[in-house]
Amino acid sequence: MKQFKRLPRHIGIIPDGNRRWALGNGLNKEDGYEHGISPGFELYRECIELGIKEMTFYGFTQDNTKRPAVQTKAFQKACVDSVMQLTGQDANLLVVGNSGSPLFPKELLPFTKRVTLGKGLMNVNFLVNYGWDWDLRQSIKNPQNDQNDNFTTSIASSDISRIDLIIRWGGRRRLSGFLPIQSIYADFYIIDDMWPEFKIQHLYDALEWYQTQDVTLGG
Amino acid sequence: MKQFKRLPRHIGIIPDGNRRWALGNGLNKEDGYEHGISPGFELYRECIELGIKEMTFYGFTQDNTKRPAVQTKAFQKACVDSVMQLTGQDANLLVVGNSGSPLFPKELLPFTKRVTLGKGLMNVNFLVNYGWDWDLRQSIKNPQNDQNDNFTTSIASSDISRIDLIIRWGGRRRLSGFLPIQSIYADFYIIDDMWPEFKIQHLYDALEWYQTQDVTLGG
Repeated sequence: MKQFKRLPRHIGIIPDGNRRWALGNGLNKEDGYEHGISPGFELYRECIELGIKEMTFYGFTQDNTKRPAVQTKAFQKACVDSVMQLTGQDANLLVVGNSGSPLFPKELLPFTKRVTLGKGLMNVNFLVNYGWDWDLRQSIKNPQNDQNDNFTTSIASSDISRIDLIIRWGGRRRLSGFLPIQSIYADFYIIDDMWPEFKIQHLYDALEWYQTQDVTLGG
Repeated sequence: MKQFKRLPRHIGIIPDGNRRWALGNGLNKEDGYEHGISPGFELYRECIELGIKEMTFYGFTQDNTKRPAVQTKAFQKACVDSVMQLTGQDANLLVVGNSGSPLFPKELLPFTKRVTLGKGLMNVNFLVNYGWDWDLRQSIKNPQNDQNDNFTTSIASSDISRIDLIIRWGGRRRLSGFLPIQSIYADFYIIDDMWPEFKIQHLYDALEWYQTQDVTLGG
């Protein structure tokens, strides 16, 4: 295993390109998602080995559910399968998203409060039926907030910490609504390969680039 | 002038690297900022010619004012000089930032409501003593907000529209607190040269890359 002098504490993962990969491989768009599960575990295990403390995976968003039903069902299933498979690992698991909607898979309701699994070696957050507007709007809805409150503590995703490094697969250079508050100071690394084409070298490339960055938090 | 088939409506500008450029050219860090004024006007004029409808410039942030006083004074002055010079152009100018703080240059107070200058050909927004927390926290402070409100309309920067393309100079791949709500779906283009090294080709490179991107707004 590689060694890195300077590691991000928290890595955000945007696993994009499942549909484009499927089309490029003679499959239907919706067939891509199930090919995105095992890359996630390969990545997770390598990050455990490296000593990363927290990871957040972009599962699916409220925006995504406007897609054809066959796709929505496919990514819902891929998220449920991923989370269920994670229950056999050593993680502190939290699922964050609008669980009051019928689009939120009810199998995942037990994980909307953080649950320690196995040795709990890493905080793993999974965004499921997540929406940035839904997330931030909690700050308005909470009557206990006042002007002295820190905005960060009043949002729906307040149990997810600041992200140091975001890695996005599939070539797009945008956040697409991914945790706007936690991403404010994050370094952003893009991989042109599609997510189902994941290989460990992608992570190494991102971490090697991260070595050369500074952290100023805007100062 | 170049022609582009597909133009962003709103471009965000992060003019980073003034201090690194100054050090690299035998100057003191704080001397870099005044060299960042004329590039801004060159860029603005080219965008007017191209027909861009809105631009937002990252002036300085509340985070930035934690730097040594000689630097803070230098970037405050560069912002004031830039805005004053813009009053001779054709723009609808708005300055957004915490104007209740002594760190906000009082010469800019008249522009905290949008002002039409000349023919008003473009909306130009200037972030001055801006803070993302200050911006978003307005949504909590406003007692008229309720859960039916759109979060986007309740923040301090609500008069700044969604950004299509963010161009950042100086090689860093991060938002550094730049308008988190308006940046949620923005495409992000990085230029390794420092901001005082601006040339029109940088803009063309960004716009040529932008041709190849799609707009899905997360769908």
